[in-house]
Amino acid sequence: MSEQNSRPTLALIAEEAGVSQATVSKVLNGRTDVAPATRERVEGLLKSHNYLAPGGRRARRSGLIDLVINGLDSPWAIEILRGVESECAERGVGAVISLVRDEDARPPSWTSLPALHHSDGVILVTSRMTHKQREQLERAGVALVVIDPVNLPDTDIASVGATNWAGGLAATEHLLALGHRRIAVIGGPREMLCSQARIDGYRAALERAGIEIDRRLIRYGDFRHEGAFRQSQDLLDLDDPPTAIFAGSDQQAMGTYEAARQAGLRVPQDLSVVGFDDLPMCEWLSPPLTTVRQPLEEMGRTAARTLFQLLDGQTLVSTRVELATELRIRHSTAAPPRD
Amino acid sequence: MSEQNSRPTLALIAEEAGVSQATVSKVLNGRTDVAPATRERVEGLLKSHNYLAPGGRRARRSGLIDLVINGLDSPWAIEILRGVESECAERGVGAVISLVRDEDARPPSWTSLPALHHSDGVILVTSRMTHKQREQLERAGVALVVIDPVNLPDTDIASVGATNWAGGLAATEHLLALGHRRIAVIGGPREMLCSQARIDGYRAALERAGIEIDRRLIRYGDFRHEGAFRQSQDLLDLDDPPTAIFAGSDQQAMGTYEAARQAGLRVPQDLSVVGFDDLPMCEWLSPPLTTVRQPLEEMGRTAARTLFQLLDGQTLVSTRVELATELRIRHSTAAPPRD
Repeated sequence: MSEQNSRPTLALIAEEAGVSQATVSKVLNGRTDVAPATRERVEGLLKSHNYLAPGGRRARRSGLIDLVINGLDSPWAIEILRGVESECAERGVGAVISLVRDEDARPPSWTSLPALHHSDGVILVTSRMTHKQREQLERAGVALVVIDPVNLPDTDIASVGATNWAGGLAATEHLLALGHRRIAVIGGPREMLCSQARIDGYRAALERAGIEIDRRLIRYGDFRHEGAFRQSQDLLDLDDPPTAIFAGSDQQAMGTYEAARQAGLRVPQDLSVVGFDDLPMCEWLSPPLTTVRQPLEEMGRTAARTLFQLLDGQTLVSTRVELATELRIRHSTAAPPRD
Repeated sequence: MSEQNSRPTLALIAEEAGVSQATVSKVLNGRTDVAPATRERVEGLLKSHNYLAPGGRRARRSGLIDLVINGLDSPWAIEILRGVESECAERGVGAVISLVRDEDARPPSWTSLPALHHSDGVILVTSRMTHKQREQLERAGVALVVIDPVNLPDTDIASVGATNWAGGLAATEHLLALGHRRIAVIGGPREMLCSQARIDGYRAALERAGIEIDRRLIRYGDFRHEGAFRQSQDLLDLDDPPTAIFAGSDQQAMGTYEAARQAGLRVPQDLSVVGFDDLPMCEWLSPPLTTVRQPLEEMGRTAARTLFQLLDGQTLVSTRVELATELRIRHSTAAPPRD
């Protein structure tokens, strides 16, 4: 990572100072259990290696990070937040939350927020990022981790996601095993990597089962209820409608539920539905939703841990981490109705 | 408010310094568009009036507040968060989020968090608070606003809520107008003020309609799905079951939906259901849920604005603000089935 290349690791500084890495970390974190002479030596090395931002403001960590979420419209975001907050709380670090929307012209932009309160790092959730924004963060000496990036301007940015392709495969194979042959998919936005991976997993399952892909059964949406409701109505209106719909998010699955209800179809007797995310509300739906679990809270935790590793000058084993998805079978899937 | 009594207001300081309140506010906020001599005079007065904490740390605001939420299990919390964040963003203030649970023994406790990152104030959501905790905050010079307090150790704490009683009344009157006579209510915890107010609104509506209260139709819960599911099963098993259930939260209403489905009852044809909160997901439910809207986002905004008023030394018109609830009629309520 360029973050790593442009800064000496703590190991190097520890070696030069003749102390342990733990001691260097203590100095960076402003801990008081370090002998004054040792502190001075370590701080000097940190400064001479430009580890500290201009003005030496970061000689003491602020103990704050920023969590920047693109929209909070989905209950999804709060699961991520829960993980980030929990990991931060264990380290005594405060998580400052900022919500941005794509159309958001609200000044100050999220890239200037960390500077405002001297944040140590940023966790960015499903947002677009320009080269310029990334440069702003680098100049400010702010570390960055991205969760489910829409686009990655640079491949060396640390990011956390889930095994979306495997999730799409598992959802579709579950429906195939129940006997479904006409299976539709309603994905998220076409340009989002995580959405494309889920649809590709769906395709792969059908191909492995020797079922020809029917392009009319593949739809794109925006991960939201309303669009999925309309797409589902459209699918159920086909001359040969699907007997199962794999929705790209739990919120979309709710749209499918309502389209089924309005069409006089029962879930799962007349139509099977699978979601994606496994939000807490999946258990509360009627019927409880079969869905692909993304470990959202754990993704938040992992992002925070990765950020702390960067801040401690540790080398990441991999800049990209994908946590496993898992099918959760509940009561929205069953064998297809007999003709 | 004691906050007010123990600190001079900005008005007083402005008068003594011979400047406008806006100028005093600028100095407190660390703005640079104040003449150096003026700044010095104002800062001196702020110090001599003990407006600033020991060490003068607050000569410049930290630009941070803490939002402490008791649990984030409910999608409810994110609506409050949205409002707080939005108001903070407009002022360039960072909102540090902390989640606590009643059983949470996690050190540091939320009362020490603000001190850790020198927060200016705390917004506390549905938490219990002891005298000791409040004293800790006061000693640290941290302002406090509470949203939907469980208990109020002191009546002079600023708090924000909704008109829960009026909401319970409106929900029940809606069901009465549809022709229901056997109406059950499943409230939240018995000791929570907001829950008791909703149930009292229900009672009032029945009394005004001349319907005798049947104690078997009044249940208490925990605002969650699981308990409401069981309570609803129990209600539907009565010899003379209710034809309508007013749930204390949207999450509870989802439990009622599932109990109805499992009993082979259709909503709203066989059973009418009303929720409380109006979370975004109410529109996504099948059928879309009739519910009492709490302006949660606006409650968050109001709490943040109140906190900023306290920080600016303004006198609050009222320490307690209740925002209006409003019935949102969707598709989960209809006339009762004919016998």
